[in-house]
Amino acid sequence: MNVTFLLFQDFETLDVFGPVEIFGRLKHQYKILFCSLFGGRINNEHGVAIETKKIDDVKNKIEILIIPGGHGTRKEVTNMQLIDKIKEVVGLSKFVMTVCTGSGLLAKTGMLDGRVATSNKKAFDWAAAQGENVKWIRKARWTKDEKFYTSAGVSAGIDMSLGFLSDIHGIDFARKVAFEIEYNWTENMNDDNFYEQ
Amino acid sequence: MNVTFLLFQDFETLDVFGPVEIFGRLKHQYKILFCSLFGGRINNEHGVAIETKKIDDVKNKIEILIIPGGHGTRKEVTNMQLIDKIKEVVGLSKFVMTVCTGSGLLAKTGMLDGRVATSNKKAFDWAAAQGENVKWIRKARWTKDEKFYTSAGVSAGIDMSLGFLSDIHGIDFARKVAFEIEYNWTENMNDDNFYEQ
Repeated sequence: MNVTFLLFQDFETLDVFGPVEIFGRLKHQYKILFCSLFGGRINNEHGVAIETKKIDDVKNKIEILIIPGGHGTRKEVTNMQLIDKIKEVVGLSKFVMTVCTGSGLLAKTGMLDGRVATSNKKAFDWAAAQGENVKWIRKARWTKDEKFYTSAGVSAGIDMSLGFLSDIHGIDFARKVAFEIEYNWTENMNDDNFYEQ
Repeated sequence: MNVTFLLFQDFETLDVFGPVEIFGRLKHQYKILFCSLFGGRINNEHGVAIETKKIDDVKNKIEILIIPGGHGTRKEVTNMQLIDKIKEVVGLSKFVMTVCTGSGLLAKTGMLDGRVATSNKKAFDWAAAQGENVKWIRKARWTKDEKFYTSAGVSAGIDMSLGFLSDIHGIDFARKVAFEIEYNWTENMNDDNFYEQ
């Protein structure tokens, strides 16, 4: 399956490259693509720059769409051209995943209405305000609702990606990948060490 | 401090972008740089391409040098131009860190002789063979020996980076960063869940 990351200015580094590590190493099953609204080079605050395809040029190939978070989401949530494009592409995708505040962008499209979702702890209220009809869950490492996966903050995107592998290929397969990258995977999506009442 | 990543063809994605996330978000203390032997665009097997500076053009600015692992190390360990350059730059750097099989490249320079070091589990024997006079430790999340930090496989680079922050800024500082990215940090460098006797 094609795994397509939707990038925008000031995306969060690990939100993207955690899942890239997981899916990228499974070359026989997954292929990584980077896209953005207009294509071209996308930078972030950490000094990372990635060349992207224009989303319209790849949208019919997207099978898994991954939307990262990062400071950039605060600005992009008011970019209705991007929000409308996400809405269109979500309809074309087999699976949609968000990391961190990426769920805020997805919520803004309305496509999460009535579905369970989470976001990172530090910006939870901001994300939740983007979709009042979403069933927001504060205590979750990640959530799953049919084709929609959303994860908590930054490194939780790795756990969600492994959770997806488990759903598709079985838990032994996912555990093997976690072991290869020596990652202490939180296997249960409800185990959230970062939730504080 | 400048944190300079030495890239080469087929570096491991998360070996680089785990530490980039940790240091990159601390904009007041650290600045990220990417370099390579000749500069230019460096690709890896996961479809990631990064523009780099030529190492000679930045070598006097390097304070923290980070050498990732990845399949590319198998080829680069015979690239004596790179190995000699690493040896030179290690001498100029305040701190040197390796992730995964990056310790194999560093060991090959001879600069790790007599020092403790680790590597990832799956390629430990290969890494160890690059430096017979290194005090290799199989059971370690990461190691520290004066200015040299080495970590176990892939995601252990995140733990090592947080360990470095703890050494420099104190454990509360490092814990705060881990919490912000919702990372289950293994705080003790000797806690290694991936060691099998």
